Amino acid sequence: MMNQPSTNQYIEQNKDRFINELLDLLRIPSVSTDKKFKGDVLKAADYIRQKLEEVGVDYAEICETGGHPIVYAEKIVDPKLPTVLVYGHYDVQPADPYELWKSPPFEPEIRDGKIYARGACDDKGQVYMHIKALETMQAQKTLPCNIKFMIEGEEEIGSDHLEGFVKENKEKLVADVVLISDTDIIDNENPSITVGLRGMSYMELEVTGPNRDLHSGMYGGAVDNPINVLCKIIASLKDEKGRITIPGFYDKLVDLSGAERKEINQAPHDDEQYKKTLGLEALFGEEGYTTPERIGIRPTLDVNGIWGGYTGEGAKTVLPSKAYAKISMRLVPNQNHKEIDALFTKHIQNIAPDTVKVKVTSHHGGQPAVVPTDSVAIQAASQAFEEAWGKKPYLTREGGSIPIVSLFQQQLGLNAVLMGFGLDEDAIHSPNESYGIFNYLKGIETITLFHKHFAALYQKG
Amino acid sequence: MMNQPSTNQYIEQNKDRFINELLDLLRIPSVSTDKKFKGDVLKAADYIRQKLEEVGVDYAEICETGGHPIVYAEKIVDPKLPTVLVYGHYDVQPADPYELWKSPPFEPEIRDGKIYARGACDDKGQVYMHIKALETMQAQKTLPCNIKFMIEGEEEIGSDHLEGFVKENKEKLVADVVLISDTDIIDNENPSITVGLRGMSYMELEVTGPNRDLHSGMYGGAVDNPINVLCKIIASLKDEKGRITIPGFYDKLVDLSGAERKEINQAPHDDEQYKKTLGLEALFGEEGYTTPERIGIRPTLDVNGIWGGYTGEGAKTVLPSKAYAKISMRLVPNQNHKEIDALFTKHIQNIAPDTVKVKVTSHHGGQPAVVPTDSVAIQAASQAFEEAWGKKPYLTREGGSIPIVSLFQQQLGLNAVLMGFGLDEDAIHSPNESYGIFNYLKGIETITLFHKHFAALYQKG
Repeated sequence: MMNQPSTNQYIEQNKDRFINELLDLLRIPSVSTDKKFKGDVLKAADYIRQKLEEVGVDYAEICETGGHPIVYAEKIVDPKLPTVLVYGHYDVQPADPYELWKSPPFEPEIRDGKIYARGACDDKGQVYMHIKALETMQAQKTLPCNIKFMIEGEEEIGSDHLEGFVKENKEKLVADVVLISDTDIIDNENPSITVGLRGMSYMELEVTGPNRDLHSGMYGGAVDNPINVLCKIIASLKDEKGRITIPGFYDKLVDLSGAERKEINQAPHDDEQYKKTLGLEALFGEEGYTTPERIGIRPTLDVNGIWGGYTGEGAKTVLPSKAYAKISMRLVPNQNHKEIDALFTKHIQNIAPDTVKVKVTSHHGGQPAVVPTDSVAIQAASQAFEEAWGKKPYLTREGGSIPIVSLFQQQLGLNAVLMGFGLDEDAIHSPNESYGIFNYLKGIETITLFHKHFAALYQKG
Repeated sequence: MMNQPSTNQYIEQNKDRFINELLDLLRIPSVSTDKKFKGDVLKAADYIRQKLEEVGVDYAEICETGGHPIVYAEKIVDPKLPTVLVYGHYDVQPADPYELWKSPPFEPEIRDGKIYARGACDDKGQVYMHIKALETMQAQKTLPCNIKFMIEGEEEIGSDHLEGFVKENKEKLVADVVLISDTDIIDNENPSITVGLRGMSYMELEVTGPNRDLHSGMYGGAVDNPINVLCKIIASLKDEKGRITIPGFYDKLVDLSGAERKEINQAPHDDEQYKKTLGLEALFGEEGYTTPERIGIRPTLDVNGIWGGYTGEGAKTVLPSKAYAKISMRLVPNQNHKEIDALFTKHIQNIAPDTVKVKVTSHHGGQPAVVPTDSVAIQAASQAFEEAWGKKPYLTREGGSIPIVSLFQQQLGLNAVLMGFGLDEDAIHSPNESYGIFNYLKGIETITLFHKHFAALYQKG
């Protein structure tokens, strides 16, 4: 009998194929927010299903929802063993502005050890690690637990149909932990596990002034300008200290203890280096909090898009009829995104002058979540990182929102382990998104180790 | 010998051809601000030249400038007679947003007695009246004075090459008055002559925050958002009373006398009707001034365009690197647009926080102008309106900017008569720009009467 290759040997021997399979997935422009990519979203779902079947799950299926489908698969080794439910998403953010990409977003290119493509890190690259980790464990016959996969296609547009799916499939989704790779580590020298996530409330404003575009010379000064009004509204939403001015916005917040704040500030962070990387002279945020606190434990409000009037070349003297903005708020425990939607809407209607009409709509939202740090799953993740990376991981709170984390806590009573391998510089949601090949392969290794340690600790404890 | 038809009979007999020739001109998309229409701008110039030759000028020529050319023509009846210099422009504003046009902007359509097309009123329709008025006077052998034409192609982008042309051709442009049709009357029951025009300063802001688009969840709260900053800057430019906050902005203003303000408020204006027409609940403008004053004699500031971040369908959680705005200020005597450009730029740099970089550029400007109301030319215009419209015209101050008016005063010592025939509802600079056929034909008649009365009064006085 031949010697079985080690996990690392297996990954090394198969890495070119592991990469090429991911590149094929990245070639599918599965932009969930844009109807014209609907066929591609389905194609990506089917690719995931097929690849799961190829690595030997018991079965894989495409589950219809009211929107884009969810891919579900499972491999039950033994019902008595613990079960890990892997969650991820195969949909991606829009890739525009296209002209800022060095290589086309859906024609992946490898440069300097990184894969450049929309979705490379968020979340196709990180989802695909789990499929290849299962392949590795199957090939080595070391799979120590049951695995279920739930890979959705609407994460970038608010996971609207996920809650319904989870509620209707509670039996099917029974597990002991949820494992998600859709977050970052601090850097390749400082691995980390995310133990807190902010929620989100994403709103859109439409401000209407006169019933048609006017000549700014003939009406300017006498008719209020919806762009000026929109700017005034937005400017008033934060005060000089970076505090959000919406009445009731902070009411449900639970202040963290000194010990918790201390732990957050322990992870390596250097404001000078941070500014340099971003090309900034100065930072701005809520007074009295450090940068990691501003990102991890404090809510915030950002304009994600604004438009109105003439935006082409040259000068056009229009006083426009309409102006628009997309505004999102990141939320922290115990803010409820539906309550915040309502507070925001009410406040905007209160402050809007009677010279315009303002329509407020809610795009989607997600609840904030905190992961308990003393669980078996976090211990297993910590051991996996330490074994694979040679360093105990930091526990961090991160700014992004993964609504599913809170949904799983509420609907299935399951905690999540946020074991992501992305980097800041991966530029997710931006032109030139990338994912390091080192992170991709190291992630596969770390995931196999998580399963090993989780099964062992679970059976011990 | 047959009876010569009257002016009105001649116009009536030829009206279909007069309209069709204008429609041909409107089919040429001579958008001066956009390089891709350069050939069409030239085509429009050549059409004007050709039509001037057809109505019997001594010569017509296309004069090159550093930008789009100027069409010059003259008909000298007798050097001893007074000379009218007709100014107008054959370039047009961009037509976007195209989807809001009921019929395509460069495929003119007649509906309910109006010609719908970009440039129908501003200024092709109003320029072409002068060519057909000359034809009418030639046909009737009633041309009582010399006429010169100077029709430019850069009015919508700031007339950058006009000053140089005027300076180099002072001999050629010798005249007794400048006649311009590029303004409005109050309505078809209330003819009016514009005797004051606001100047303009048109600026663009580019606000740069981080060196790339960021994920708003991962950075929001710690990194200042250039859209939020831009909104804050814009919101601060006007106070609660509608006053512009730029230091020094009002320093050069000359307050009008009570009598002058009274005259401005004599022209028919009804705020209730004005709001109804525009679909507004309330107006907003500088405290202490009426609507006609706010439009005619007070400076103002409007955002003409704003953009940044994600403006597509759905939600994208980006903290953008850049945000932009186009901002124009309308100026009144004795504000100087170059001084205002400088005050604006300095103020923006002063108030911009150190979390962003702000680039301020000036698009173009024009000096404000006031026309003396006691001149022979204004008397002649008044008599022409009274004869053609059966009602003495009001003298109004209007909000738009025609930089050439101040340029003519300074360079040629000539006053302008602003004898425009447009209406508010013509929606110039907007989708569905139109020009009434009644106004087009009545304008031709009024122009022939202006020449008659001007020559008569000039020789008397």
